[in-house]
Amino acid sequence: MRFVTARIGEYETAGVVSEQEQIIDLKQAQFAMKNEVSIPETVSGIIEQGAEVMVEIKKVVEWASHQKESKTNGIYSLSDRDVRLMAPIPQPPKNVLCIGKNYADHAAEMGAENLPSHPIVFTKAPTTIIGQEEEIDPHKEVTSELDYEGEIGVVIGRRGRGISKEEAMDYIFGYTLINDVTARDLQQNHKQFFLGKSLDTSCPMGPYIVHKDAVSHPDKLELITKVNGEVRQKGNTSQLIFDIPTLIHILSKGMTLEPGDVIATGTPAGVGKGFTPPKFLQPGDEIEITVNEIGTLINRIKK
Amino acid sequence: MRFVTARIGEYETAGVVSEQEQIIDLKQAQFAMKNEVSIPETVSGIIEQGAEVMVEIKKVVEWASHQKESKTNGIYSLSDRDVRLMAPIPQPPKNVLCIGKNYADHAAEMGAENLPSHPIVFTKAPTTIIGQEEEIDPHKEVTSELDYEGEIGVVIGRRGRGISKEEAMDYIFGYTLINDVTARDLQQNHKQFFLGKSLDTSCPMGPYIVHKDAVSHPDKLELITKVNGEVRQKGNTSQLIFDIPTLIHILSKGMTLEPGDVIATGTPAGVGKGFTPPKFLQPGDEIEITVNEIGTLINRIKK
Repeated sequence: MRFVTARIGEYETAGVVSEQEQIIDLKQAQFAMKNEVSIPETVSGIIEQGAEVMVEIKKVVEWASHQKESKTNGIYSLSDRDVRLMAPIPQPPKNVLCIGKNYADHAAEMGAENLPSHPIVFTKAPTTIIGQEEEIDPHKEVTSELDYEGEIGVVIGRRGRGISKEEAMDYIFGYTLINDVTARDLQQNHKQFFLGKSLDTSCPMGPYIVHKDAVSHPDKLELITKVNGEVRQKGNTSQLIFDIPTLIHILSKGMTLEPGDVIATGTPAGVGKGFTPPKFLQPGDEIEITVNEIGTLINRIKK
Repeated sequence: MRFVTARIGEYETAGVVSEQEQIIDLKQAQFAMKNEVSIPETVSGIIEQGAEVMVEIKKVVEWASHQKESKTNGIYSLSDRDVRLMAPIPQPPKNVLCIGKNYADHAAEMGAENLPSHPIVFTKAPTTIIGQEEEIDPHKEVTSELDYEGEIGVVIGRRGRGISKEEAMDYIFGYTLINDVTARDLQQNHKQFFLGKSLDTSCPMGPYIVHKDAVSHPDKLELITKVNGEVRQKGNTSQLIFDIPTLIHILSKGMTLEPGDVIATGTPAGVGKGFTPPKFLQPGDEIEITVNEIGTLINRIKK
């Protein structure tokens, strides 16, 4: 199942995108189906409730697949002008957790002499998060080196600390896409990455969270990033230096992971800074990040 | 005024510590005073509401100063066994924002060859935050180099981006104390500071947020950190490389600051790692951070 946060007219709600490419407003659909509402109205709330609410959601989605598209049923066309996809998790409990130099070819293009012996972990403020098709602010007065980084985001489903590699996959709710937009000049000047990674709108996320049940091989996902249609980055999670279970294990050694935490797992080679001369982002540029099993995240730089 | 988050019996509430060293449960006291409740129940909520609620809070505190200590009046003794101080802001909207190497003598003891030309900014996850007298987990299985860093925390009062140095002080709600507990081995191994700064319980905060009206010279605050009664760190905000208005200006250039954001402004020389041999924290150690105008934050390492 593909979970979304949708803005429908004036309100935001948790939804599922059906196989018919319709958005099911889960709360509204549940109400239409059985005149009762128990499904939380945010994706974070659904993640926190865990397995029990998932059973109910499956029933509602199944029911909706036999109903007509209508406001009353909570079923909308993706092209409905009143419907807009937001970031699936607009306010995670922690800053977005990010892993630096986690693909060997990207570490090399960034000038690293050795592969990292320990994961490089930094964060992006929640004020960076935007959704599908929202515009990225070029921040012309702050940076002249805005860059893209296509990444796979792991969404945590259960609270835990001291999680072993063997258990790690049980702590995942699902997967999403992240564009870890980076101001290279700030990243360099301020030494620690945080500020160069935290300009407002610099974390496009989405369009969906695909539940882990629908991703059969998270260790073999191909990740492609295009700028204005040109393929810039191509990687595969099989190439990760620290794979997903290892990241969850290491992050949670002394830090509690919480439902709704998002881990951006790193970016492959091909960022703008890796080219000679560098290919930094310009107003009007369109960045498109695709993983077949997860979706395509599209955002443009504001003109 | 000194704002606190207090746990009173089973519930948490926003309070003020009076000049008589009593805790006034603002909601309860307001109800006792005028049979009506408009003051938010969290310190974050109060900060968000801004000036208007402050007028009402002053009235309630004034009223309470003439009343008897009682549950009905919402007035409690600080020594009441049912009352415990929590971190004033247990869940800020962003990770705690921290400034590295912002005192020249500390930069030197950490081996920096030059003073930073730009603020070094990193974060601590909200899962690190604990309050006055709460125990710090030594995380023996994760680190053998746990260290203290006494700091002054600036609490943001208003949302803003592109804040000039001249306006910066208007965006402050008040000041608190922060112990930026750090696992030096993790800080070094993982390159970026985040993980070594984000072990659970590694951000003691409090005991109060002192409203800025009660801090006449934030640029001349003496900050002293003791371990087991021995003075280890002594600094003054007059020595900050990047002073408080400059930090707010630089942080907000492209990142929106939000009410309740906390900026830990950096630590002076005298951290455990600065000694030969290093004086890392051990179970049972007591760390005490004092700024006369702000208070004393006391925490022990769990045995």
